[in-house]
Amino acid sequence: MAAPRALLFDVFGTLVDWRSGLLTACAEVTARSGAAADWAAVVDDWRRAYRPALDAVRADGAWRDLDAVQRDTLTDVLARHGVDLPADDREVLVRSWRRLPAWPDAPAGLDRLRANAVLATLSNGHVALLVDLLRFAGLRMDTVLSAELAGSYKPDPVVYRRGVELLGLRPDEVGMVAAHPDDLEAAAGVGLRPMFVARPREWGPGTEVAPPADLPGLVVAHDLEDLADQLEG
Amino acid sequence: MAAPRALLFDVFGTLVDWRSGLLTACAEVTARSGAAADWAAVVDDWRRAYRPALDAVRADGAWRDLDAVQRDTLTDVLARHGVDLPADDREVLVRSWRRLPAWPDAPAGLDRLRANAVLATLSNGHVALLVDLLRFAGLRMDTVLSAELAGSYKPDPVVYRRGVELLGLRPDEVGMVAAHPDDLEAAAGVGLRPMFVARPREWGPGTEVAPPADLPGLVVAHDLEDLADQLEG
Repeated sequence: MAAPRALLFDVFGTLVDWRSGLLTACAEVTARSGAAADWAAVVDDWRRAYRPALDAVRADGAWRDLDAVQRDTLTDVLARHGVDLPADDREVLVRSWRRLPAWPDAPAGLDRLRANAVLATLSNGHVALLVDLLRFAGLRMDTVLSAELAGSYKPDPVVYRRGVELLGLRPDEVGMVAAHPDDLEAAAGVGLRPMFVARPREWGPGTEVAPPADLPGLVVAHDLEDLADQLEG
Repeated sequence: MAAPRALLFDVFGTLVDWRSGLLTACAEVTARSGAAADWAAVVDDWRRAYRPALDAVRADGAWRDLDAVQRDTLTDVLARHGVDLPADDREVLVRSWRRLPAWPDAPAGLDRLRANAVLATLSNGHVALLVDLLRFAGLRMDTVLSAELAGSYKPDPVVYRRGVELLGLRPDEVGMVAAHPDDLEAAAGVGLRPMFVARPREWGPGTEVAPPADLPGLVVAHDLEDLADQLEG
């Protein structure tokens, strides 16, 4: 099979460690305002609220960006946990999605992959957020593509189709790289080549996610250096 | 005045030398198929056909990408010059807009500017073309923005507004960098900060373009290193 001409990357969890980054921001908030909470539980619940909230935006038909969506879900999650946080501290947490650390293999792995393919994000983060995040995390892409440019959210097939269209390629010329089975299944459903990268610590220790079962042509890699080895091999 | 948070760049003529790049492609076509022509005249006429053709697309309301537009204008220009070129050679010329050399100061100038601002293209080239061109020319941006994402062409104000919106900024936080007065006037018309870079050899020797007159706050630089000096100073 020919090498892919482009690779699209999921970002949160696949390229960056959202959990460590959010917990760092929570520690800053605590240090500043003294707010106490079981922050790991808050952060995990906030991340769990992400997918249903984006599905609700899709159902509603009035697209809003991830900052707006997560401002609302954070308010709900804090209320459930009985945490009273001033608006400016809540905003620090919303903005902290732009300051998440890369997984250690990601910067060099992307540089290797970029030698042989066009690289772009394909994330539910909006363009402005992704631009800031890539700069913070030191990740180089050829361009930023986002669900925003399709006016929807993954796993809506229009998002993957729009990404491929903007690159001027056929779906089978493009790989979708993600740590999440639902993302890869949706991408494969419109003809992209699914590439799973294991991120066993995405939700903290002991939470490993299995690759999607029964996905023809699936590439499984343990990190981006391994993916580069396999695509070069 | 505060430093700009982002800079948007015109590409053809401002960052890359379209004339040298197209003439190189013409020489390849001649070497391959023996087609003879006054290529400098053909190339200059082709470039002159660009703006009216894009204006016609805007008037027509059915957006088409730059490859499609330039395929048509090239056919017209070749006919006017009495040059008979096979379709595959014409396609080589259309595709050569992805293989244009950077002006010598551009790669290092952009790297300096990127230390203090988000950098993006804002070009009439479509995303796929720009991605290939930036890779070829060795130019690093934080993302590719294009008139394609507004479904129009510069100097339509919606293109500049869409660029600013996708960066999540206010117009006065964003500089528009271009070698062309009409581009800067349109950008300034919607509140962006106009920044002129002189490209005295864009149309060959002896064709220098003057900066736009009477544009408040205009920055005038003789190249991107000079622009970086002025913005850092």
